[in-house]
Amino acid sequence: MTTPRVALDAMGGDDAPAATVAGAVQAAREHGVAVTLVGRRDELQQHLAAAGAEDVIEIVDAPDVVEMDEDPVAALRAKPRASVRVACQLVADGAAGAVVSAGSTGATLTAALLGLGRLPGIRRPVVAAVLPVSDRRDVVLLDAGGTSDVYPDVFGGYALMGAAYAEVLGATSPTVGLLNIGVEPGKGNALAKSAFALLDQTAGFAGNVEPGDVLCGAVDVVVTDGFTGNIFLKTVEALATLEQREANASALVLGVGGAVLVAHGSAAAPDVARALRRAAQVGRAGLASMVARRLAEKEAT
Amino acid sequence: MTTPRVALDAMGGDDAPAATVAGAVQAAREHGVAVTLVGRRDELQQHLAAAGAEDVIEIVDAPDVVEMDEDPVAALRAKPRASVRVACQLVADGAAGAVVSAGSTGATLTAALLGLGRLPGIRRPVVAAVLPVSDRRDVVLLDAGGTSDVYPDVFGGYALMGAAYAEVLGATSPTVGLLNIGVEPGKGNALAKSAFALLDQTAGFAGNVEPGDVLCGAVDVVVTDGFTGNIFLKTVEALATLEQREANASALVLGVGGAVLVAHGSAAAPDVARALRRAAQVGRAGLASMVARRLAEKEAT
Repeated sequence: MTTPRVALDAMGGDDAPAATVAGAVQAAREHGVAVTLVGRRDELQQHLAAAGAEDVIEIVDAPDVVEMDEDPVAALRAKPRASVRVACQLVADGAAGAVVSAGSTGATLTAALLGLGRLPGIRRPVVAAVLPVSDRRDVVLLDAGGTSDVYPDVFGGYALMGAAYAEVLGATSPTVGLLNIGVEPGKGNALAKSAFALLDQTAGFAGNVEPGDVLCGAVDVVVTDGFTGNIFLKTVEALATLEQREANASALVLGVGGAVLVAHGSAAAPDVARALRRAAQVGRAGLASMVARRLAEKEAT
Repeated sequence: MTTPRVALDAMGGDDAPAATVAGAVQAAREHGVAVTLVGRRDELQQHLAAAGAEDVIEIVDAPDVVEMDEDPVAALRAKPRASVRVACQLVADGAAGAVVSAGSTGATLTAALLGLGRLPGIRRPVVAAVLPVSDRRDVVLLDAGGTSDVYPDVFGGYALMGAAYAEVLGATSPTVGLLNIGVEPGKGNALAKSAFALLDQTAGFAGNVEPGDVLCGAVDVVVTDGFTGNIFLKTVEALATLEQREANASALVLGVGGAVLVAHGSAAAPDVARALRRAAQVGRAGLASMVARRLAEKEAT
């Protein structure tokens, strides 16, 4: 598979579009990533001109923006030409192979659902982050920040999607843990207790895991709700940043029919560039379709 | 105030009573802490004899133990002579000035409530941990793991207790943040959104804080539910441990009428010894009564 063009939601993120345009220019110039900026054409053109990069990078106009404090579903209904929605549409239309957004994660998930649809058997798409925890292996964390309030019945799908992703990343017979405040069955809040009961039937389920277990690589996949997962991820990343180690730049949306990556709202230009490179890799590897295929195999058994 | 005797729930914790007895012996011998071991007398006597420490440390017999997977309330009702309950009773009776337990946090909270009562105006006691975040100051985190499922109306009390504790620790006009996955109002799960609306009226409330803000010392106090708080605390501690920095050894129960500290279930002898020293300091400083006094002042205004 050739390296696909990446559609960047240029209006998403705290420092957009300055940081997104600068990141796109860096990814294009230094790493040869083909980027399409999606957002307010005039504004983006000015930034590109200032960087002398008008010839390097395409723009697709999208006049609307979903703000961080807006309700994603309502905002995307009201703004069909919002940048994140147009970016996902480019993938649906085959004009790009992957999407990156540093805007509202909820809006990105919703736009991905609207534009790319959900995979068969998946109730709710989810944000999957990869934590580099040891020499030995990566850990897939999901939901890393997609949906804060969920019913326990989403956890079976999270476990399946996470295991499929872990296999694509190289794990054989991935184990799945439930992020919790103790390892004993019966630990945790009401949601975790119900999730445990449902997951207990699942192949590969290794029980509850505490944050320390996750960071030691005790399991291949760790599942939790999007609120807890995002707190966990942001804590790990904040401590990495304080120690000037490189924090995780982006996370993959699983469960939708295309490659969609979410980057941090606080992403600076180098973070955006890294996310674009990762999106190109994910698209080139066909990661999203590989996960979908694994998932279909698992569902079939 | 003289240094008080510390009652240690000798049966609580993963490696109890070996680790608790060894920790008590260390605290007594190396730091002169007066410790009363509470638990199964015969078993404790054997461990003490093996350490040649029968003369250094008292034992109070308590034949029952609350196991980690038991429901705390039911277990303590069924076992009035459980070690953690007898330990709290020693403080109520004036035979000790502080309690340490590395057993189930829920059981310790319940035993503290039963034995020591709750402070006026407090709906629910809470576990407060102190995170050393920078040269500048400590951050009080609560609930650090006391109660996983709460209604939003507990957060006002958490903020008051946390601010009182922060003042005792040296903060002037402490600021209070709500742990969340974004700083904008409207971020978070349903509980966080409701808590924000309630706290928004509170003096000193600084809004939502992300994990990175907390770890940079952006506020003096951070409030959250006990599940999220414990995940956050355990993540910080796990990363500290991985880097061989010293993790937080114990947390203070706020809202009950006495000094009660919870140590980790995984506490080894040196951790137990540190928790005992800290309990003696907390008791000597009259920390719990100082917090109660501050709280009464705040409630009165």
